[in-house]
Amino acid sequence: MTQERPFDLINKSIGQQVMIRLKNGIDIRGKVVSFDAHMNIVIEGAEELDEGTLKTKLGTILLRGGNILFLSPV
Amino acid sequence: MTQERPFDLINKSIGQQVMIRLKNGIDIRGKVVSFDAHMNIVIEGAEELDEGTLKTKLGTILLRGGNILFLSPV
Amino acid sequence: MTQERPFDLINKSIGQQVMIRLKNGIDIRGKVVSFDAHMNIVIEGAEELDEGTLKTKLGTILLRGGNILFLSPV
Amino acid sequence: MTQERPFDLINKSIGQQVMIRLKNGIDIRGKVVSFDAHMNIVIEGAEELDEGTLKTKLGTILLRGGNILFLSPV
Amino acid sequence: MTQERPFDLINKSIGQQVMIRLKNGIDIRGKVVSFDAHMNIVIEGAEELDEGTLKTKLGTILLRGGNILFLSPV
Amino acid sequence: MTQERPFDLINKSIGQQVMIRLKNGIDIRGKVVSFDAHMNIVIEGAEELDEGTLKTKLGTILLRGGNILFLSPV
Amino acid sequence: MTQERPFDLINKSIGQQVMIRLKNGIDIRGKVVSFDAHMNIVIEGAEELDEGTLKTKLGTILLRGGNILFLSPV
Repeated sequence: MTQERPFDLINKSIGQQVMIRLKNGIDIRGKVVSFDAHMNIVIEGAEELDEGTLKTKLGTILLRGGNILFLSPV
Repeated sequence: MTQERPFDLINKSIGQQVMIRLKNGIDIRGKVVSFDAHMNIVIEGAEELDEGTLKTKLGTILLRGGNILFLSPV
Repeated sequence: MTQERPFDLINKSIGQQVMIRLKNGIDIRGKVVSFDAHMNIVIEGAEELDEGTLKTKLGTILLRGGNILFLSPV
Repeated sequence: MTQERPFDLINKSIGQQVMIRLKNGIDIRGKVVSFDAHMNIVIEGAEELDEGTLKTKLGTILLRGGNILFLSPV
Repeated sequence: MTQERPFDLINKSIGQQVMIRLKNGIDIRGKVVSFDAHMNIVIEGAEELDEGTLKTKLGTILLRGGNILFLSPV
Repeated sequence: MTQERPFDLINKSIGQQVMIRLKNGIDIRGKVVSFDAHMNIVIEGAEELDEGTLKTKLGTILLRGGNILFLSPV
Repeated sequence: MTQERPFDLINKSIGQQVMIRLKNGIDIRGKVVSFDAHMNIVIEGAEELDEGTLKTKLGTILLRGGNILFLSPV
């Protein structure tokens, strides 16, 4: 049995919907395409949410990992 | 006898409830699943608290370590 | 089959229009000329947008990667 | 005679009460259990103080070193 | 054919006028003398602009790269 | 003749009074005990000053170097 | 002919008056004594200026490089 690591959660989320809370309070929802060791993430069908309501459709985005507060599978 | 190290506290908290105070003042409570050397942590059954009262159920989250002020077993 | 990486999205955007949301809230639109591992990017025909409306034509700019929130092909 | 180093002060404080002023202005008081090279510190019986008055009992906490302004034996 | 890199834009700007937008919103205009890998730049005949209007003549300055939002040939 | 380096000023201040201006505007005055390469400094008889007037006696403190704006012998 | 580098400007300023604009908006004027690769600088006869007017005489200071916006010979 190998020990689990935090990045396993992103890896298992490839092709799945996640919700990402940014440091500036913005929520981004969409499907994980790829990520790297800095937590830079490509999200497909990304939507910017305001209090859970759709604010803007962003399409495919490359999000810089340093802006992330937390990420959660949905 | 080996000397204790700060990360031992997170290691001993795997599978246990912790309270995490973030730099932005938000409190997150939940069960530690895994962590790494940057203090990135996966929390299961995560809840966002406001002055000790449940604000939002977040489910499983991967929290970036750089946002943490302190972590405490509960 | 090789695994996809976040920077592939910038690489595929060379010569294409992108929209870049900066950490300070400003949006920059223009054509990607080049980039490096710090996400420093040269944008040609760069325009500063305010709520989607053209605010200033900036011409060719070298944008420091550290200021970027996310980047999106348009 | 060996030269003294700043971290000697934390080392000598293991098992002793310290007061820690955080960058956000909060004061934490409690007993040092362990620390590392990033100044991450485990504090036992930690209390959050507001202008010197007890605000919240935090129990045992792991405090990220990057949040510390200064630390002082009490 | 060698691939272009973002710093090529600064290199080609040596001896030329550039406009530099700083993170704090200030614009600096002047002639590039030299730069390094941190984007530290020496600007000759530097002028601080406020909404495009000359505010202060700064002469020759060494600007720390970390303060730069973007740089643009003029 | 060897060239002088900025840290020589702290080294020569060991056992002497210094005034330290922090990034958050607070002034700390006291006697330098030790320092390291990150400018972490132990100050003995430290006093927090407000506009030059004593605000709080802090005793011996370990100050994290990253919080320092400048340091001056007094 | 060797290529010029940004730090050459500080090196040529040793023993000369410079004006340093800090990130927090404060201006420091004085004579450069020494500097290092982090742009940490010792300034002799340092004066804090407010809109070009002398506010406080600081004497000799060691200024942490990370606080500098730009430096200019005067």
